[in-house]
Amino acid sequence: MNYRMILYILGWILNFEGVFLLPSCAVGLIYQEKAGFSLLAVAALCLVLGLVSVYKKPDRTQIYAREGFVIVALSWFVLSIFGALPFRISGYIPSMVDAVFETASGFTTTGASILPNVEALPNCLLFWRSFTHWIGGMGVLVFVIAVLPLAGGSNIYLMRAESPGPSVKKLVPKVKKTAFTLYMLYVIITVIETVFLLAGGMPLFDALTTTFGTAGTGGFGIKNDSIAGYSTYIQVVVTVFMILFGVNFNLYYLIYKKKLKEIRYCTEVFAYLGIIAVSILLVTLNIRGMYVHAGTALKDAAFQVGSIITTTGFATTDFNLWPTFSKTILVVLMFVGACAGSTGGGVKVSRVLILMKTVTKELDNIIHPNNVKKIKVEGKQLEHAVLRSTNVFIMAYLFVFVSSLLLISLDNFDFTTNFTAVAATLNNIGPGLAGVGPTSNFSGFSNFSKMILTFDMIAGRLELFPVLILFSWRTWRK
Amino acid sequence: MNYRMILYILGWILNFEGVFLLPSCAVGLIYQEKAGFSLLAVAALCLVLGLVSVYKKPDRTQIYAREGFVIVALSWFVLSIFGALPFRISGYIPSMVDAVFETASGFTTTGASILPNVEALPNCLLFWRSFTHWIGGMGVLVFVIAVLPLAGGSNIYLMRAESPGPSVKKLVPKVKKTAFTLYMLYVIITVIETVFLLAGGMPLFDALTTTFGTAGTGGFGIKNDSIAGYSTYIQVVVTVFMILFGVNFNLYYLIYKKKLKEIRYCTEVFAYLGIIAVSILLVTLNIRGMYVHAGTALKDAAFQVGSIITTTGFATTDFNLWPTFSKTILVVLMFVGACAGSTGGGVKVSRVLILMKTVTKELDNIIHPNNVKKIKVEGKQLEHAVLRSTNVFIMAYLFVFVSSLLLISLDNFDFTTNFTAVAATLNNIGPGLAGVGPTSNFSGFSNFSKMILTFDMIAGRLELFPVLILFSWRTWRK
Repeated sequence: MNYRMILYILGWILNFEGVFLLPSCAVGLIYQEKAGFSLLAVAALCLVLGLVSVYKKPDRTQIYAREGFVIVALSWFVLSIFGALPFRISGYIPSMVDAVFETASGFTTTGASILPNVEALPNCLLFWRSFTHWIGGMGVLVFVIAVLPLAGGSNIYLMRAESPGPSVKKLVPKVKKTAFTLYMLYVIITVIETVFLLAGGMPLFDALTTTFGTAGTGGFGIKNDSIAGYSTYIQVVVTVFMILFGVNFNLYYLIYKKKLKEIRYCTEVFAYLGIIAVSILLVTLNIRGMYVHAGTALKDAAFQVGSIITTTGFATTDFNLWPTFSKTILVVLMFVGACAGSTGGGVKVSRVLILMKTVTKELDNIIHPNNVKKIKVEGKQLEHAVLRSTNVFIMAYLFVFVSSLLLISLDNFDFTTNFTAVAATLNNIGPGLAGVGPTSNFSGFSNFSKMILTFDMIAGRLELFPVLILFSWRTWRK
Repeated sequence: MNYRMILYILGWILNFEGVFLLPSCAVGLIYQEKAGFSLLAVAALCLVLGLVSVYKKPDRTQIYAREGFVIVALSWFVLSIFGALPFRISGYIPSMVDAVFETASGFTTTGASILPNVEALPNCLLFWRSFTHWIGGMGVLVFVIAVLPLAGGSNIYLMRAESPGPSVKKLVPKVKKTAFTLYMLYVIITVIETVFLLAGGMPLFDALTTTFGTAGTGGFGIKNDSIAGYSTYIQVVVTVFMILFGVNFNLYYLIYKKKLKEIRYCTEVFAYLGIIAVSILLVTLNIRGMYVHAGTALKDAAFQVGSIITTTGFATTDFNLWPTFSKTILVVLMFVGACAGSTGGGVKVSRVLILMKTVTKELDNIIHPNNVKKIKVEGKQLEHAVLRSTNVFIMAYLFVFVSSLLLISLDNFDFTTNFTAVAATLNNIGPGLAGVGPTSNFSGFSNFSKMILTFDMIAGRLELFPVLILFSWRTWRK
């Protein structure tokens, strides 16, 4: 285990966090808020610790899969703990467990909150809270890779450990360039959304924070009623951009590279849009009776479906009051999640597709045992390794889910609350149903449960294995 | 598709059902009940239709996997529909959908009921209801194989389609003999339990029906309060035998064959007993405060844990009132299920073990990529085919689960009721939580939902694929 190198990269992560705290300090300055000083102090702390750690580059910079996974997992814990300090120091979130929960929820783009009254926070902390979504959305390590010179091949282990979805495509030779292009596309779409929101008369501060929440598919709002108080125009814009940020960025990459013919192989995106369309239709029909106008029902259905499948977690209505059928659709969408290679969480549409094809193939196999076909995905034959890792992912996912459910059930909340609390954190969504519904929050849980759910958020964001590996004794022995 | 052969075996199934209805007719005669005539009429109907169908043996008796699966699936639907007729004809269950639900629940050893007042049924119908558990426990087709002369190799397809669990061991050369031995062991343990219950002063009728419910891990009781009204001795006997019937029958086979040294490879049984012990301990600690005596808490914990993990479904207390932690443990046990090769349902302990080993192996793989180990089960290296089929099973299981959950949620019951209703039927348990808890029943669901849940019971009992294959158009084309 190359401990020196682990420390070195964690140092860069701290530098990175220190720099990214600065915009929030500026917001504090503009609004003349005292909490700005706590942001500034933490930024300084991060930079000092970070610079000390990276002062001397290790002699041996080569790392392998094991170190890659460990670095990625530790980075996200370090980010969440240091990012939580401003909330704690300023006194707006007095409990450190709560502050880490809130910050991990931000970085992992979950959007689950322990705050009963968001509007009590000063603007600079609200900005930092939403900004963590934007930072976390694209992946922190990918950013570090894009700026950091590492030994050849080392960075692939970092990228592989942090990137979401089953990696059907290999990016080895041009990791840095790809990372840069993806970040650029991310910035461009962010700017476009902000412009659209400003055009609807939204104040700049609201437009920026809402965009951060959408871009990272995070879901932290700056109002207690999330997006419900804004105009229909704003709600529609947010719906569209949530869905756009849940699309596999490979699609935008292809458009950017003008490889339009290859778009027809983006089966995942088509399936994703298909699932959204069908869900909106079913929910609209199911909730129609609760609304005077069909249009409003359609708007709310589309918003909530888009918000949940992309794992954003914004709300325009209390869907906890919807009929069970609609709620069950939302619970199912929580697990399906967005496309691989997007900022969204969940199991990912591509995995669901692979799993469905596995089952269909098995049935074919029974009917015609001598006629063995290979599974095709995105126009290419599926490699055995991808199929295996998809299966293993689901199993690990079930084990983490069940263990978390058991542990938090010690708090004695009802089954629906516990089940959707784990679903909402492990899939990085935010709100669940019942006690953690869109009008409630996670403050009622014990510290122990909050730590479990914080773990779930990070485990979910990193797709389990980087975090699980921390618990294997074989990782740490010589 | 050998349609002639399908009809021929279905004919034998009807003959079999006709004969097995006769003991219930005898009970009707003994108690002088009018409902006995409806049992007799249906027995006659089954035998007439059955004998006509088997009058001429088909020229071509060879069948393949496809026919095997179709025959097994259709057999269970035919059994449930004809077995439901006595309830319908006698008027005690006026709705045919309800009657089929109740009978499928019996044959699949689920034990879920639509009857609010079981004690209103005459003894002969109660006997038939419990007897279906005993018949269904060991598998109907296995019985038919044991008595029916089939073309060489044909019966393996039937047995494979009906037997529970991932088939680690091949039984090909001596299917008939094995089937016979297993049935004998089943009868022996059944007799032992009846004797133990009679020794506790239980009336013969109660002892027989309770034994049927235990042996099949079914759960139909003849009292409205299930087993709660009986003495502690009876409750302890039932607890022990429920757990014994959830053990892989391979263990009894080894004892019978005096191969005691091989028992140490029965990892599944050890894991199963370990899970039971840990669960009883945790539940006892969790519910301790609700009881005056620790012993009573232990007794109720052991009974409910044994009842749920073996998917029996008897109850001695309303565990719906337990703290959420205990309820969540029970929900998890619902999915784990009993051992493969037992009469219990669920995912099966061996599958859970295989899946856990898959995840551990993946972690090892990341840590030491060049050190690839094979997964071992029961002392032998796991075949790739078993691993694959285990993975595929879980995926198919999740799809059936989610689809059922969505469809029954249209009835607008709460999430916990729907979730545990599907869990309780698909895993062949019986009671769930909330609206389908041990003191409630399934009568509140719409006919549509009842049909979905009936489907789930049969799909769960046959481990999905035989039933899923009925829906593939490729099954039916030339």
